[in-house]
Amino acid sequence: MGALDVSVCDYVLRSLILSPSCFLPASLAKRREMEKVLKPMDAEQLRENAHKMVDFIADYYKNIESFPVLSQVEPGYLRKLLPDSAPTHPESLQNVLDDIQEKILPGVTHWQSPDYFAYFPSNSSTAGFLGEMLSAGINIVGFSWVTSPAATELEVIVLDWLGKMLKLPEEFLSQGKGGGVIQGTASEAVLVVLLAARDKFLGRVGKNSLEKLVVYASDQTHSSLQKACRIAGIYPENCRLLKTDSSSNFALPPDVLSEAISKDIAAGLIPIFLCATVGTTSSTAVDPLPALGKIAKGNEMWFHIDAAYAGSACVCPEYRHCIDGIEEADSFNMNAHKWFLTNFDCSLLWVKDRNDLIQSLSSNPEYLKNKASDGNMVVDYKDWQIPLGRRFRSLKLWMVLRLYGLDNLQQYIRNHIELAKHFEQLVAVDHRFEIVVPRTFSLVCFRLCPPNDDHDHCNKLNRDLLDAVNSTGKIFMSHTVLSGKYILRFVVGTPLTEEKHVDAAWAVLQDEATTLLGRF
Amino acid sequence: MGALDVSVCDYVLRSLILSPSCFLPASLAKRREMEKVLKPMDAEQLRENAHKMVDFIADYYKNIESFPVLSQVEPGYLRKLLPDSAPTHPESLQNVLDDIQEKILPGVTHWQSPDYFAYFPSNSSTAGFLGEMLSAGINIVGFSWVTSPAATELEVIVLDWLGKMLKLPEEFLSQGKGGGVIQGTASEAVLVVLLAARDKFLGRVGKNSLEKLVVYASDQTHSSLQKACRIAGIYPENCRLLKTDSSSNFALPPDVLSEAISKDIAAGLIPIFLCATVGTTSSTAVDPLPALGKIAKGNEMWFHIDAAYAGSACVCPEYRHCIDGIEEADSFNMNAHKWFLTNFDCSLLWVKDRNDLIQSLSSNPEYLKNKASDGNMVVDYKDWQIPLGRRFRSLKLWMVLRLYGLDNLQQYIRNHIELAKHFEQLVAVDHRFEIVVPRTFSLVCFRLCPPNDDHDHCNKLNRDLLDAVNSTGKIFMSHTVLSGKYILRFVVGTPLTEEKHVDAAWAVLQDEATTLLGRF
Repeated sequence: MGALDVSVCDYVLRSLILSPSCFLPASLAKRREMEKVLKPMDAEQLRENAHKMVDFIADYYKNIESFPVLSQVEPGYLRKLLPDSAPTHPESLQNVLDDIQEKILPGVTHWQSPDYFAYFPSNSSTAGFLGEMLSAGINIVGFSWVTSPAATELEVIVLDWLGKMLKLPEEFLSQGKGGGVIQGTASEAVLVVLLAARDKFLGRVGKNSLEKLVVYASDQTHSSLQKACRIAGIYPENCRLLKTDSSSNFALPPDVLSEAISKDIAAGLIPIFLCATVGTTSSTAVDPLPALGKIAKGNEMWFHIDAAYAGSACVCPEYRHCIDGIEEADSFNMNAHKWFLTNFDCSLLWVKDRNDLIQSLSSNPEYLKNKASDGNMVVDYKDWQIPLGRRFRSLKLWMVLRLYGLDNLQQYIRNHIELAKHFEQLVAVDHRFEIVVPRTFSLVCFRLCPPNDDHDHCNKLNRDLLDAVNSTGKIFMSHTVLSGKYILRFVVGTPLTEEKHVDAAWAVLQDEATTLLGRF
Repeated sequence: MGALDVSVCDYVLRSLILSPSCFLPASLAKRREMEKVLKPMDAEQLRENAHKMVDFIADYYKNIESFPVLSQVEPGYLRKLLPDSAPTHPESLQNVLDDIQEKILPGVTHWQSPDYFAYFPSNSSTAGFLGEMLSAGINIVGFSWVTSPAATELEVIVLDWLGKMLKLPEEFLSQGKGGGVIQGTASEAVLVVLLAARDKFLGRVGKNSLEKLVVYASDQTHSSLQKACRIAGIYPENCRLLKTDSSSNFALPPDVLSEAISKDIAAGLIPIFLCATVGTTSSTAVDPLPALGKIAKGNEMWFHIDAAYAGSACVCPEYRHCIDGIEEADSFNMNAHKWFLTNFDCSLLWVKDRNDLIQSLSSNPEYLKNKASDGNMVVDYKDWQIPLGRRFRSLKLWMVLRLYGLDNLQQYIRNHIELAKHFEQLVAVDHRFEIVVPRTFSLVCFRLCPPNDDHDHCNKLNRDLLDAVNSTGKIFMSHTVLSGKYILRFVVGTPLTEEKHVDAAWAVLQDEATTLLGRF
């Protein structure tokens, strides 16, 4: 059977027998013939094949625990399994599905497995998936309001909804000068606000002053800030990643920031941007926003808050205090695609003054002009982001909010935090291990730390332990280094993870630790 | 019925009756209780609800011709229809689907309608949609090889496949120093190569020389180049958009480029980047690559080719000549999400030297380190792009190539070009209209041009005509301005468009023109 019931050979045969095209003018006959060849958007073919794909995906989730969590393939494995070039003729969907099962899935690291505890989570959910399906299905490109008013307006509304759930200051909502926008990732969010800050300052002090602009953050800040600085042309030596240590639980001490700023001003430099983090990547440290914000505002700098991971927890009243101090911020970012059940990608950025973004990022070529935009009656999100094109991403967030509701979403977060607490307690009673920094959200930072072990050996031991547990395929975790210590990170955050998975993960860790320690 | 069969009230009632949680320790009981509340990734719930969504989307396509192509809503329409805040409790999927039908779809501009002829197309197909479903379904984040080897390796392989279909020079394929990568959009593609070029030159001449760097392109180049220049900090006065006119059919004359470069060098400036276009946005002009490439290489500049729209046509042997001269290019871009049946977003970028990208865009924080990356055994696509996170986008392109095959894809392109020719012939025989530039691919640039009409009035007439046809809801077209002339753009490019739709569109245009001319 040809793919999607289309086969060139079949068609040629059929047309030889049936088609009266020899009686039509040549060009018309040619067009008619071509139109018959491929029906790539036939509604009934889509229906039939998409139902098959739904079952394939649902079956994947039924069996997800049967796969090694971390893919165990070797580099280059896939080239050996696939042909050197694309096919000339169509293949059947069944062939492709078979290949996905046999060739692709072994090379997948299963982020949705209940036994996945690495990096930060990247949540899938039925609601998020349905939203992605719908967005991919209607496949509009919403760069300007006119190209699909619903795409822009739903985004404005849903970002207001979530802003209210987070109790963001009113200035971040769309009714005044501010508003929210969905970026692809937190990297893009920090880049666009850094560009806005850069251009604002260069506008004041002259475009030849790029070399004087200074950006501040702690050394725990996500690497995307440094990358954004490089893209924006901030001089590498003016990107200050201020040192933190265990005395502040790896949060940025305000006096360290003050001192750095004073020194830079004395040297004739211009502080323009502070990035504070709520929930750093290594250890979910929470920078002290109120004090940092005061310093930033005192120096007229742009104040950005990166809460990519931990922002989700702030919809629970008991965690909202983590973003106290946001009143002073110019921009705030949280990734709904991490821990908020919205399939990747969906990074939420709010700004107090949308004109700052528009000043830096707008474009207005003739071929995109239209009455609504010309009349300043609408939001055109193309001017708030790097790319021109954009998907209808608000659908999935809207569906998550409606199909689950605030209560369930809060419970979802709390459940993961409780499971992380449970894991922390398990680690705490095994004296071969130590908790390295206090747990704040759903990440536990710990390490194997036998008594009297020296520093270097201990680091090697934990590196080996991580290798060993990940090689079992039973769980997947990742690591970091804090003040020279190699540390294991255990993040609870997938929708399927239950207590039994946490217990089983701990058993794997204990077993592998025992084996490893037995070797010495 | 609660959404996804989950209702907090139901659960509370059931747990009061059934749960023995009062006999468990408090924290354990709390956890168990929470785990019961929400099952956002239950495989059978996903199956049941996703089947409903498939039918919703297939029905949308069945009825797609019943909607106005261009949404006819007023700015702010949606806020009046939706509540002010997110729900506390879950809603049912049926409620949400009803809202999509009644509130969202009226605000959608239907890019997949067979009567859509605006901008450039943004193709959906069954194969592309299935690929999007699968990618959203397994929801991995493939920033490094290790986070899902298949995501990286399939992308390398599929970009090689397509590179061969386009007969790209071997240096663009992955076996040597080059290779392909999927970016979100052409805007991101041109940005990353511009950054690579900027950093390469600044590395040679010193980072204080930003003000001397000059970028060249024609004034027909997509606005994303200018935006990329602003982001990269290229001085606005050093972004040369060289004038074109009808004498070269709006392609960039090589002597104009040579002259500009000579002048800049004489003034002590440093030419770094040339962006040539194959298929400009306004009129699908094709810049003369061989001559331009020679000039760029003679001056040691980076030579980028933007074939976002027309690149797809180059898989047909009879259009491959449009990219002759690519031998001299450093990078080449085509959007599979425009005219190649791959759902948005999927912008393909090939470079001859991937290290140029990696030099500019790599990051290597401790928490992402892993053996495969440390050993330089693998591609880590995070270092070829702006964001860190990335979806498994190669799946959809792979499925398009396999389920349709090269022959069908070529026929698909040819069919659209034949339909555009057909439209061009219809316009040509109506003496009230004129074809403004010769048609090259599937775009026809034309305008209403009654004899003896003056320039300004003629522009107004065409603006009014566009308004009138788009207001009917029967078709959607867009416009441009070339050498001061307001021009209507008619692009054939959606998978559902057949000859009858082109004929009907022409009838709408003729009718509205008759009405409009009757008024004067």
